[in-house]
Amino acid sequence: MRMVDIIHKKRNGKELMEEEIRFFIEGYTKGDIPDYQASALMMAIYFQGMVPRETALLTKAMVDSGETIDLSAIQGHKVDKHSTGGVGDKVTFIVGPLVASANVPVAKMSGRGLGHTGGTLDKLESIEGFNIELTKEQFIHNVNQHKLSIAGQTGNLAPADKKLYALRDVTATVESIPLIAGSIMSKKLASGADSIVLDVKTGSGAFMKTLEDSKALAKEMTAIGNNLGRKTVAIISDMNQPLGFEIGNANEIKEAVAILQGAKVEDLRRLSLEIASHMTVLAGAFEHYKQAYKTLEQHLENGKAYEAFRQFVIAQGGNADMIDDVSKLPQAKHHIQVKSDTEGYVAEIDAESIGTAAMYLGAGRATKDDKINHGVGITLKKKIGDEVKKGDVLVTLHANKENPEDSIRKIAEAYRFSDEPVESPTLIHLVIQD
Amino acid sequence: MRMVDIIHKKRNGKELMEEEIRFFIEGYTKGDIPDYQASALMMAIYFQGMVPRETALLTKAMVDSGETIDLSAIQGHKVDKHSTGGVGDKVTFIVGPLVASANVPVAKMSGRGLGHTGGTLDKLESIEGFNIELTKEQFIHNVNQHKLSIAGQTGNLAPADKKLYALRDVTATVESIPLIAGSIMSKKLASGADSIVLDVKTGSGAFMKTLEDSKALAKEMTAIGNNLGRKTVAIISDMNQPLGFEIGNANEIKEAVAILQGAKVEDLRRLSLEIASHMTVLAGAFEHYKQAYKTLEQHLENGKAYEAFRQFVIAQGGNADMIDDVSKLPQAKHHIQVKSDTEGYVAEIDAESIGTAAMYLGAGRATKDDKINHGVGITLKKKIGDEVKKGDVLVTLHANKENPEDSIRKIAEAYRFSDEPVESPTLIHLVIQD
Repeated sequence: MRMVDIIHKKRNGKELMEEEIRFFIEGYTKGDIPDYQASALMMAIYFQGMVPRETALLTKAMVDSGETIDLSAIQGHKVDKHSTGGVGDKVTFIVGPLVASANVPVAKMSGRGLGHTGGTLDKLESIEGFNIELTKEQFIHNVNQHKLSIAGQTGNLAPADKKLYALRDVTATVESIPLIAGSIMSKKLASGADSIVLDVKTGSGAFMKTLEDSKALAKEMTAIGNNLGRKTVAIISDMNQPLGFEIGNANEIKEAVAILQGAKVEDLRRLSLEIASHMTVLAGAFEHYKQAYKTLEQHLENGKAYEAFRQFVIAQGGNADMIDDVSKLPQAKHHIQVKSDTEGYVAEIDAESIGTAAMYLGAGRATKDDKINHGVGITLKKKIGDEVKKGDVLVTLHANKENPEDSIRKIAEAYRFSDEPVESPTLIHLVIQD
Repeated sequence: MRMVDIIHKKRNGKELMEEEIRFFIEGYTKGDIPDYQASALMMAIYFQGMVPRETALLTKAMVDSGETIDLSAIQGHKVDKHSTGGVGDKVTFIVGPLVASANVPVAKMSGRGLGHTGGTLDKLESIEGFNIELTKEQFIHNVNQHKLSIAGQTGNLAPADKKLYALRDVTATVESIPLIAGSIMSKKLASGADSIVLDVKTGSGAFMKTLEDSKALAKEMTAIGNNLGRKTVAIISDMNQPLGFEIGNANEIKEAVAILQGAKVEDLRRLSLEIASHMTVLAGAFEHYKQAYKTLEQHLENGKAYEAFRQFVIAQGGNADMIDDVSKLPQAKHHIQVKSDTEGYVAEIDAESIGTAAMYLGAGRATKDDKINHGVGITLKKKIGDEVKKGDVLVTLHANKENPEDSIRKIAEAYRFSDEPVESPTLIHLVIQD
């Protein structure tokens, strides 16, 4: 088999066979196939696409290129969730306890990465003492005990994906739906869950800006999961503005705690319940989605969800005082109100700009070596549809410097107003079950 | 400027600017831009194409990546020809002397390369003593003296093209018309001629199998030449069977000599006169094509063309006895007749298979280190349209081994017969002058 023939075949729009896909992924992982052939194939795939069978085979080959996490020592049907990423997305901290409260095990491996705010692990580390570096045994023990653990990813998962992603990044071949789907799913599948719920964000603040693209990505991912024997559901949710009101690290934990204690932050609560309901249905805890939703909603009201969160925090060494009284979480030194110099109805809040403003405050990492500042962040005071008068506060910046000019400028860029009333955007656009 | 942005732009179907094309070609030649980005761009160009302006800029940048040959010391308007390559193509040995006989200088640099038969230089070396390694001074002196010299290419012409071509070969990005056109034209333009006539082959034995593709390539190349200030004409000629009757090295020289001495091998004579006429018209030796054709036809009859060839051979140290009496050219040991075991009309002669049969005999090189055998080759006895009876000789193999089985098998594969009479294919499909 010759790599040039495989590129040629895909270039001409033909379907690749299993042995060709394996030849490529194995050879590329080992370094036998050079980058210049891999990038040519990636560009050919960008133009010619792949049928679901090929995408599943590619994903499987990437999973097989490295280690996989064996969760068989965990009792029950393990469910995982994945979000394609958005600003203010603290859904994991609500969904995890909710699902655990229904007695369904959630064994979640997570990362740090670069971004506007910290990753899941960084946010959890806002809680004093919280330990994300668990051994495999601790991790499994915690899930069996408390139905929930979130830990740093260990092991060399899907190294082919890691290598290919780095190559795609410098060869303008990132924006290919089958390649994006394969990349996400290879890591999820290697993490060992039995079922997966995907939260595919759509809108100006998402990687996928249009509903059409988001739908295509969601379909591609559910097809991969289901093709490879994992029940997979995708929810397409709105990211035309940040989710909830808090952006940062400690303040995202704070907002999650409020929801777990019954607060009614509409979009955040609704999306969390939606995702958690699908997870518990996939795990077989409920027969019907509506039944799951209703029960889980009760768990937000009756303290069961919060209690699951509390047990999870304590089991990983976290100081529960800090969540029982969230004013004990890290705080920024200054709280700066950014006011509106115009009036009207909020029509757009560019999540990307809000995220950048948070990063400028120190909430995220621009490079690997940057240190996260857990106390800083942003609280939105107005969201899409809200009426605003001149001088009304749009956001509060929680900063460690007195005058965070660059963040203030970004906030001004983020908000757009309309003279006419504006409806708040649809939150859940679509649920895709293959 | 970042290479990834250039790839992204082309991937999205946008037109590249001059500085972007130069940034790529200069960076790639120097090794600052890695192969994996170059191959991704090549694949993006394969899919998105380039407009004539871009192709001309790419070609110019490739010319500027290396040396160019300065022919200004040659008096008169220098014309060159180039063929996209076919089997039995000995047109250069006829066209060169014909154009020279009209007092138009032909300064031709040529190569050896891999192929079914030797290259132009190998064929000339069938003539005892013929020297293709001329100094620049000898080369220019010979052209000024005899209006014709053919020598090995010196200097580092279009190194960017060399590097890119090698990369395209292993990344399935060869078959892109703008890239093929740019590659051919960069070498031609670096060789310094004022005008160029291109012989673009079309048909089963050509790189471009369809008339449509051949036309697209021809248009692209004439556009590049004319864009960059060289008058360029392209002739699209048929390669659905080998050109003329002889394939090999010495026997191709023999057939060329026959034409120069007035023989009427229809396709070969006609195509040579066509190309030579356009060359002399471009050089201003004649006002009209018909006038050129008529005069050059006379030069085949009255010995002027042959005399020009003779002077050229002698000037480069060749033994003129060998062309005056072509039986003195290298000969193979065995002459094997391959007979037809069927009857009908010749409908197809796959030039590719005939070429391979010749290579098996030793007429060409499969790898760089192979030695050419000048005496071996093939003489076609039947061409498309000829009636064949059982037992008629199809070809004669000139071989150094007694039983060249593999070549005989290839000959059998090459011929296809029809029960109905077949017309001989159109020789000149189109002439493209921008």
